[in-house]
Amino acid sequence: MSKKLTKRAEDYSKWYNELVVKADLAENSAVRGCMVIKPYGFAIWEKMQAELDRMFKETGHENAYFPLFVPKSLFEAEEKNAEGFAKECAVVTHYRLQNDPENEGKLRVDPEAKLEEELVVRPTSEAIIWNTYKGWIQSYRDLPLLINQWANVVRWEMRTRLFLRTAEFLWQEGHTAHATKIEAVAEAKQMQDVYAQFAENFMAMPVIKGVKSDSERFAGAEDTYTIEALMQDGKALQAGTSHFLGQNFAKAFDVKYTSKEGKQEHVWATSWGVSTRLIGGLIMTHSDDNGLVLPPKLAPIQVVIVPIYKNDEQLDAITERVNSITKDLRKIGISVKFDNRDTFRPGAKFAEYELKGVPVRIALGSRDLENGTLEVARRDTLEKNTINIDEAVTYIQDLLMDIQNNLFDKAISFRKEHTTEVNDFKEFKKALKNTGGFISAHWDGTEETEDRIKEYTKATIRCIPNDAENEPGVCVLTGNPSTRRVLFAKAY
Amino acid sequence: MSKKLTKRAEDYSKWYNELVVKADLAENSAVRGCMVIKPYGFAIWEKMQAELDRMFKETGHENAYFPLFVPKSLFEAEEKNAEGFAKECAVVTHYRLQNDPENEGKLRVDPEAKLEEELVVRPTSEAIIWNTYKGWIQSYRDLPLLINQWANVVRWEMRTRLFLRTAEFLWQEGHTAHATKIEAVAEAKQMQDVYAQFAENFMAMPVIKGVKSDSERFAGAEDTYTIEALMQDGKALQAGTSHFLGQNFAKAFDVKYTSKEGKQEHVWATSWGVSTRLIGGLIMTHSDDNGLVLPPKLAPIQVVIVPIYKNDEQLDAITERVNSITKDLRKIGISVKFDNRDTFRPGAKFAEYELKGVPVRIALGSRDLENGTLEVARRDTLEKNTINIDEAVTYIQDLLMDIQNNLFDKAISFRKEHTTEVNDFKEFKKALKNTGGFISAHWDGTEETEDRIKEYTKATIRCIPNDAENEPGVCVLTGNPSTRRVLFAKAY
Repeated sequence: MSKKLTKRAEDYSKWYNELVVKADLAENSAVRGCMVIKPYGFAIWEKMQAELDRMFKETGHENAYFPLFVPKSLFEAEEKNAEGFAKECAVVTHYRLQNDPENEGKLRVDPEAKLEEELVVRPTSEAIIWNTYKGWIQSYRDLPLLINQWANVVRWEMRTRLFLRTAEFLWQEGHTAHATKIEAVAEAKQMQDVYAQFAENFMAMPVIKGVKSDSERFAGAEDTYTIEALMQDGKALQAGTSHFLGQNFAKAFDVKYTSKEGKQEHVWATSWGVSTRLIGGLIMTHSDDNGLVLPPKLAPIQVVIVPIYKNDEQLDAITERVNSITKDLRKIGISVKFDNRDTFRPGAKFAEYELKGVPVRIALGSRDLENGTLEVARRDTLEKNTINIDEAVTYIQDLLMDIQNNLFDKAISFRKEHTTEVNDFKEFKKALKNTGGFISAHWDGTEETEDRIKEYTKATIRCIPNDAENEPGVCVLTGNPSTRRVLFAKAY
Repeated sequence: MSKKLTKRAEDYSKWYNELVVKADLAENSAVRGCMVIKPYGFAIWEKMQAELDRMFKETGHENAYFPLFVPKSLFEAEEKNAEGFAKECAVVTHYRLQNDPENEGKLRVDPEAKLEEELVVRPTSEAIIWNTYKGWIQSYRDLPLLINQWANVVRWEMRTRLFLRTAEFLWQEGHTAHATKIEAVAEAKQMQDVYAQFAENFMAMPVIKGVKSDSERFAGAEDTYTIEALMQDGKALQAGTSHFLGQNFAKAFDVKYTSKEGKQEHVWATSWGVSTRLIGGLIMTHSDDNGLVLPPKLAPIQVVIVPIYKNDEQLDAITERVNSITKDLRKIGISVKFDNRDTFRPGAKFAEYELKGVPVRIALGSRDLENGTLEVARRDTLEKNTINIDEAVTYIQDLLMDIQNNLFDKAISFRKEHTTEVNDFKEFKKALKNTGGFISAHWDGTEETEDRIKEYTKATIRCIPNDAENEPGVCVLTGNPSTRRVLFAKAY
């Protein structure tokens, strides 16, 4: 492969940007802030989608598809939501191009083809969906309405980074309607749990579940439940959010149902989403100076087999053995690639799969054939082991599970080491400077204090953890009383 | 369910529009020409996607994702392609909204936030993709490049119909690059075959494989391979196309590779796509005056079980039996729904599943429990049969296969009855008027004749069938010599 990767300790941000490109995950496109997701990166997204989609369906949700465009008049209906997204909306104003009379061979917007009403490219779909739900919900029998959409959305961000913040990104957005507030809150919390389970069990990325402070809440929500992960550079990543929307959208779009008792009531709503940003989180949780490290459950290729041979005869003998192992591994659902390209040497292949984070690499040479052995290398610790070929399948199956668990444990340890309880602002700043990570601190509950802390330190309140205990204390900045600690961090 | 469906013989178009809405497949949205795909309709699309995606991967393709937007300067690079789509492009000109000073509570486009270069919402992605491929292709080792994308595209059509022609639609677009013309042509034909196999084996929709005449070709292609299906009203539906693009895009975007011999050459390209339009074709191939008829292989629910009971005790006994059958059916991959809602009577449920085209409906009452029987109704012929409960699983498995085959056979017979060989223009017009469908006729090969026939009859050349034999004849309109027959039809 190409030149060496920048080391994390040298320049974490540069390391990340280089890794995304070198590992063939994504690249910038000709459109400002929009990325191209390359096949290897997209294969990770497909694995994420498959698991999440299964989890959504198991919790009773169905997929549907709503328009890309939101007419301006619908977009502005829910005021807070509109205000929150207005500054980053791509807007379609015309529906035709024509030959440019002043530039031969060039096109220009046809001034005659101006839309009567501008169309906003969805930054999120509450508006268009709630306008549709109005026609779908009449009676309590129509509730709950549990729908998810896999889609692209556009937010015209000024500072973008591959996966983490792009003008267009892929995501899923769930939009549900309920008869009661209790049910809607329960749904929002359930989806926060689903996200947390996905992050921890599949991405091996530990997350803190909590609720956002007023100023960090989704525009138009009553409460935003979040999962917050910690990256290796000590910055937090908001990895998924689930919103209790109250009756805000139901009122803005006049969506009412007739209750069992015959009363007309506005419905209660939630929305929740995760996006291709998760891939950024996956990278920054596990990868190292040698390249990507992928948890087996989301790795497009779990095992790669590289033959070591000097001539065709040797290759044939190796291939025969490999085919048999491959067959057995696939039978138990393990994805295997046999890389028998003759245009690259084994060393180059080893480097490539290390860079691409394939969890297990097997090397098999003529000597191994004679001895009945295999060399197995694990990507997470870079350890190598020579094993008996007869035990290969069980060994690899166990190894994949071990790697998955090891990655999670390492990430948990890292988070523990980078979470500091502080009791005054000096300690706060010191912890932020020394270890970074999460700072658990008392806060007086005001937006003003939150803003000032952000101004002084760039740290924001990531969440009020679900499991935060009542603990009387005083705000690290103002000394005003506080009833529980919240988590601060610098964040992506 | 709601009022009766219009009969096909009365008004086919009205029948179609009503059916799409009543069967909960899709509906029009607040955005002109854009549809909402409802969960039941989307579930069909998901089944189509899963099969197609598998077929694409089996033929060596990988998925990726490219930006929604195409900068105008890239869009216009391949002249013919640009010309072909310029008249139906949605164009983003601004990236921000602001409060409208003249209308309180309303937003307007911020005139300061005008893009330097307008962005076209992709009507198809050749331009943005080929601009990307320029960076991916250097050597013959990088070829073939076999990529597919699942995405939404926008074509600002003036006359739209649910699924068949919408301003935004969902599709997949394959974009491949090859070292030689021969390989690229083979790829384009291979994908035509894949589409034909999918249409026939999964949709039970017979198709004619052929090549488009010059005037019906994709803008920017050298050859367009098509699959053409025949709808029940005698109109043809272009169901999928695969384009051999020659070196047009490689030249427009300067994509060259170094051959094994060290020479710089432009690469050869294909693109191919099918869309949510296929759902329209599925509906119009099989459905009847009672509602939707779905081939089992694409039905979201293959078997529905409706309990017939008078009290809870009976329901419990039925449920126990149903659970055991359901388990056995699911074990062999058959999707089953047990509809035990107590808010609807069996008759209403029967009507609902008939309208929604569930292939097999089972009714199970107390009498059946005593007799050890089940009532099985098939949606395609509406036949009912009482069978022994012990043979249920085998019976249903066979029945689903039988329904799948029967639908295909019926559609083949229909097409046979609606394909007419004609030898002069009088016969041509007569056949078009009497039976509609495909008209097999000699044509002199000129665009002028094609245009005149279209003007006189509204029929267009659907394709020159792949299996058209050399047969000297004379053009039905001009009497000029012709070497083989082509297929005409009125088309969607």
